[in-house]
Amino acid sequence: MMRGFDSIESMNADELLVKRKRGSKRFVVGAAVIGALFFLVGILIGFFSHETEQPIPAPPPKKLDPAQFIIENVDVNFLKNKLKNFTSQVRTSGNEGNNELADKLKSMWSDSGVDKIHTFSYNVLLSFANLTEPNKVEILNKTSGTILFTSSAFEPKLQSDERNSSTLSYNAYCPSGIVSGDAVYVNYGRVEDLEYLVKNLSLNITGQIFIARYGKIFAGNKVLNAENYNASGIILYSDPADVNQAKNKSVKPYPDSWWLPSTGITRGTVYMGTGDPMTPGYPSTDYGFYKNRSKDILPRIPCQPISYGDAMHILGNLSGHAAPTSWKGTLPIDYKVGPGYENNTELELKMTVNNYLETKQVQNVIGVIQGREEPDRYVLLGNHHDSWMYGAADPQSGNAALSQAVNIFGQLLKKGYRPRRTLVFCSWDAEEFGLIGSTEWIESNLKIVGARVVAYLNVETAALGTFTMQVATSPLLQDALYAAAKQIPSPEKEFKTLYDLWLAKSDKNLEPRLSYSLGGGSSYAAFYQQVGVSCADFHFTFNEETYPMSNYPLHHSSYDNYFSYEHYHDPEFKYAKAITQFWTTLANNIANAQLLPFNVSRFSSALKNFLTDLMSKYEELWKKNQVNLDALLSAVNNFTKATEEFESQLAAEKDLDKQPYKLRMYNDQIMQLERAFIYTGSLPAGSSSRNIIFGPSHLNFYKDSFFPGIVETMYTIEKGEDEWNQLKQQVFLATFYIQSAVQTLTWDLTL
Amino acid sequence: MMRGFDSIESMNADELLVKRKRGSKRFVVGAAVIGALFFLVGILIGFFSHETEQPIPAPPPKKLDPAQFIIENVDVNFLKNKLKNFTSQVRTSGNEGNNELADKLKSMWSDSGVDKIHTFSYNVLLSFANLTEPNKVEILNKTSGTILFTSSAFEPKLQSDERNSSTLSYNAYCPSGIVSGDAVYVNYGRVEDLEYLVKNLSLNITGQIFIARYGKIFAGNKVLNAENYNASGIILYSDPADVNQAKNKSVKPYPDSWWLPSTGITRGTVYMGTGDPMTPGYPSTDYGFYKNRSKDILPRIPCQPISYGDAMHILGNLSGHAAPTSWKGTLPIDYKVGPGYENNTELELKMTVNNYLETKQVQNVIGVIQGREEPDRYVLLGNHHDSWMYGAADPQSGNAALSQAVNIFGQLLKKGYRPRRTLVFCSWDAEEFGLIGSTEWIESNLKIVGARVVAYLNVETAALGTFTMQVATSPLLQDALYAAAKQIPSPEKEFKTLYDLWLAKSDKNLEPRLSYSLGGGSSYAAFYQQVGVSCADFHFTFNEETYPMSNYPLHHSSYDNYFSYEHYHDPEFKYAKAITQFWTTLANNIANAQLLPFNVSRFSSALKNFLTDLMSKYEELWKKNQVNLDALLSAVNNFTKATEEFESQLAAEKDLDKQPYKLRMYNDQIMQLERAFIYTGSLPAGSSSRNIIFGPSHLNFYKDSFFPGIVETMYTIEKGEDEWNQLKQQVFLATFYIQSAVQTLTWDLTL
Repeated sequence: MMRGFDSIESMNADELLVKRKRGSKRFVVGAAVIGALFFLVGILIGFFSHETEQPIPAPPPKKLDPAQFIIENVDVNFLKNKLKNFTSQVRTSGNEGNNELADKLKSMWSDSGVDKIHTFSYNVLLSFANLTEPNKVEILNKTSGTILFTSSAFEPKLQSDERNSSTLSYNAYCPSGIVSGDAVYVNYGRVEDLEYLVKNLSLNITGQIFIARYGKIFAGNKVLNAENYNASGIILYSDPADVNQAKNKSVKPYPDSWWLPSTGITRGTVYMGTGDPMTPGYPSTDYGFYKNRSKDILPRIPCQPISYGDAMHILGNLSGHAAPTSWKGTLPIDYKVGPGYENNTELELKMTVNNYLETKQVQNVIGVIQGREEPDRYVLLGNHHDSWMYGAADPQSGNAALSQAVNIFGQLLKKGYRPRRTLVFCSWDAEEFGLIGSTEWIESNLKIVGARVVAYLNVETAALGTFTMQVATSPLLQDALYAAAKQIPSPEKEFKTLYDLWLAKSDKNLEPRLSYSLGGGSSYAAFYQQVGVSCADFHFTFNEETYPMSNYPLHHSSYDNYFSYEHYHDPEFKYAKAITQFWTTLANNIANAQLLPFNVSRFSSALKNFLTDLMSKYEELWKKNQVNLDALLSAVNNFTKATEEFESQLAAEKDLDKQPYKLRMYNDQIMQLERAFIYTGSLPAGSSSRNIIFGPSHLNFYKDSFFPGIVETMYTIEKGEDEWNQLKQQVFLATFYIQSAVQTLTWDLTL
Repeated sequence: MMRGFDSIESMNADELLVKRKRGSKRFVVGAAVIGALFFLVGILIGFFSHETEQPIPAPPPKKLDPAQFIIENVDVNFLKNKLKNFTSQVRTSGNEGNNELADKLKSMWSDSGVDKIHTFSYNVLLSFANLTEPNKVEILNKTSGTILFTSSAFEPKLQSDERNSSTLSYNAYCPSGIVSGDAVYVNYGRVEDLEYLVKNLSLNITGQIFIARYGKIFAGNKVLNAENYNASGIILYSDPADVNQAKNKSVKPYPDSWWLPSTGITRGTVYMGTGDPMTPGYPSTDYGFYKNRSKDILPRIPCQPISYGDAMHILGNLSGHAAPTSWKGTLPIDYKVGPGYENNTELELKMTVNNYLETKQVQNVIGVIQGREEPDRYVLLGNHHDSWMYGAADPQSGNAALSQAVNIFGQLLKKGYRPRRTLVFCSWDAEEFGLIGSTEWIESNLKIVGARVVAYLNVETAALGTFTMQVATSPLLQDALYAAAKQIPSPEKEFKTLYDLWLAKSDKNLEPRLSYSLGGGSSYAAFYQQVGVSCADFHFTFNEETYPMSNYPLHHSSYDNYFSYEHYHDPEFKYAKAITQFWTTLANNIANAQLLPFNVSRFSSALKNFLTDLMSKYEELWKKNQVNLDALLSAVNNFTKATEEFESQLAAEKDLDKQPYKLRMYNDQIMQLERAFIYTGSLPAGSSSRNIIFGPSHLNFYKDSFFPGIVETMYTIEKGEDEWNQLKQQVFLATFYIQSAVQTLTWDLTL
């Protein structure tokens, strides 16, 4: 999985493509040089693959500066080699390639010199396509039974570097089943799309097979919406409008660019929960006894992803209303909504899905460097190692970066440097199925994660593009992110630091742009939403203003491989290098700071803004319905005052390093601040998050609602339900937990 | 409220009574001396009531020993004066006397010199008897309507020291209503008692009025059981068999002894929850919005407490089967079970209950002494200040002790001594209604209570008797309790220390006897069961082997006053003095120790024993039903090993005082150990406790079930329900939370 992109602006992947075209001669030369290098450094590569894999570091300076050391020692070749190595097989959870990668990481990290390394294994419920009976979508003649078209579950090999093996395409956790019906085009499959068909066009879409394009919202939401509108099945495809946006029409898709070709298939899970579906809320331990609740939370209708080449056959001859302009993709067809086929009532669609559930062992690889002063405070760096196919960008580019971070800290250890707090390197399994590895680990370690984890820093992909750094974060980490970015040299010559680059690409903002919406799309989800650990997630990306896409074009296709990463995402690996430097430096800064470099007033500013947004949207409606927000506003004011006082108190402190208990007190207060927003009772209506401030929107798992309890209740109210009492309750809860956060900022419980 | 006694053995109140009889001449002389003293020190008393109330302490020794200072400065006169003062009015929550006492405590503690003092107020739902239309139970002739008997809701004044005002007797939260029916005697109103009537005697008791004696279980359970067996109402009384056990039949009850007279009425709440019934799980804040859920959790049938003098009229002429021997009390009647009246089918019982609910402000008084090194770690000393009537033993003897503790720490502050951690003195309101003050405060401060409270030490009564110290505690505090007891001089000359006395009265045990069953009967309940704070509760008591009573005879009657306390519970206040010394010393030990003096292996031993008890009871049944306990047993073994390793690690540490972060780490691990047993999800079936190890039995709110989830499920299974899956789930949860506790004992998350 990978979180959807927020509406951060801009990018320059097209520039890159243009450059590539312009410089095609340079490319040929470059290729020759690469070939020659392969030949020349063969022995070295052999050596590295068995030995340290790292160039021998320069002799240490008299006084070791770990920040400088980190920046100097992130090595493009290391990143390249690792990426090549990691992408040499399909690494789907439960398969051999995945197990091999887990073992590889374990031995590699161990060689790097971390103090401890451990594999946490869980037996979890996974979902697979049947290899001998591939899923398919057919167009057939109802009367004669003649099959006019059958979709492909494979992607053909399009260039010589591609591996041969290709795994079937499917949507994990969709049930098996054979369904028939008329096709209905539902655009992105959002609630508003379906409402348009039912209300504006008065169509009866019950029992039909929906065909939706990927994008805008999490695929699981599309399937859930289809279920709610009584579809018998749903087909997903990526429309070229979303995944083949070349401005220059002569640019051909992959393998000639990063655009998805007509044969590419976007895989993905459509499970709406997180963690093993068998064990919501608890770890999948070997001694577990669980009522099988997976039936209640897994998709109930068959679904299947297909290529846009195949989708064209289904969409091409649909009858019915013309699709609205905003629904039209860029397939060379008239987009109509159906249901059924133009001039041929004999044709119907048939979906055959042969997915099956299987309990498999998955393994998280966890490496630990014990903190020098505070071993019981953890800074976590994490990513997953399972991928749908070769997963070069997602997740292996992130894994190369993580392994580099492990390696550098290993080198630092050998040089006698050990950070103040414990560093934990987390390589999760089964993330693509529904954040399973991270969630099970968190559930297994819930108490100590709650009491001890200072921050979780997630990098799923190093660089999707070369435009800017995209960051989603807890407000608490904002200043730490800025500070680290100022330490990192810019990967582009026109800027001095990564911060300068980031700021320059932030559309004239005074500060580099970032998002407070983490959503539910990657491994930080349970940390943030179930425990209240401060989290950040970042990578380099393309200009989303130029290319408004919910993800990069080759995402979860078999063409997201080393070839495409090296050619189109980050040819010189300099953006991956910058992200690696940034990630490692940030982790070191947080792990080694005496006083945690978190700014609590960022949190109160964020809260004020969230509340202002809510007020501007609902104030009148609330007034009319006697919803009193005075207490909530006053709680936010109290919180603002408390954060200001806390910061001025910190500013006035002298020689905190000589007052260890006071320092630890402040640090505990900072660490526990976000924990204060976690519900202690049962979950709020309509939200899977226990976090009163942040939680994935039920309309789109990839994006947060701020004050999810209030927002989700307002959604129900706006649909016409009388949930005003529920809303008042949610306002109370928000008020109460903000007051709880106020209490964490002082030792004095009489305040 | 006050917790019921556990089956700890022995006492010597009768000796005391005998002494009193023997020494009646001495008593007259003593009374004269007391009278003279009153006269002589009148000016001083006047002075004390406005000023410091404390003898001027001796000049401090060169090096102040706080433990010695505490022991030397607990003053019998202080305790006496405070008790007299506190018991001068009825202090029921919401009344003037209660408000006056809260104000008094606030100003007195403030004068003592604590750093901060604060009143936390909550508007909560209380329940009162109607003063103008007293509740009553009548016997009448159905046909003629003639009333043959009416119960009294007042207690007459029996000796000259008693105040005039007397509040009506009632059971808080019983609804108003008028019901008629035949009387049925139900012994203690336990499930087994009702089963006996229905199954063994095949009686139809539906719609009748039950009459039950107090004792064995919490009164709320009796009312709940009556509801479940479809009673129309329930009458409660204390049988002389339980509250007038004088071995010497010539001993007259109060005012001639501590035995309850025939006019005495035992009040009490019958609400089965804790905290404001309007706001389960959340604090009663002024901004709260609550669905009124009180209807679901409050009693549904009228009930009323009466004296045994009145009960005799109802029980005296019952028809039907003879009550079994164990059901027979010591009223001079034949105990029959009814229903209805012998030789007179015209007679019926009529209950008129005019209780009403009212939202009233209650206030907790909280005093704080800021810790020297670790202000963000709290040691709490607490008791309630509300009482049903004068409440001399319960709670004012405890309050005198608490005020003495505050005063002594105030003196120590002035001498320059400040303990390492913060001390918090808690005087709760509305405890008698259902632990409301403490629960609302904990709910208001849930996050910081969870993160910061090291221990909660509760003393509700100082001394009920002179036999031994009765202690209920978390296993973690056991050694700290023993250590403090060894520091306190014995109140009796034949022993050197309190520990020696306690041990000698422990029936040849190798260690002083204590109980791990805290139950739900006093203010520690929410600390222990909802948050996992280590708690202890203690007082001096009578010999329960000699006098097997669920509580002291005058409990919750208007005769629990200064007169009876001074004459019969603790004439010289030397046991109250010992308890005060013990409480203050223990709190200081915990607050000032570098390393928390908690022994984690006590906890693993306790767990092992709980599990062994369960196994011996259920092992065969479990085997038959494929309940596998291997993992649970193995978790307990892991926990045992972890506690042993933790302790040997601690033992090997040197100069921890020079390693502040390590010290704090160990202390955090110790503090968080019990938190690991708290459910993070929804509550387990059948238990109101979130604590996987400890929770009040649903059969008796006063006593714990160990592993409540398992025990409560087994109860359902033994009643014939097929809840084996639920049981397996509970076994899993117990296993999981014990494993969580294992994790808290090491920083190393790979273990």
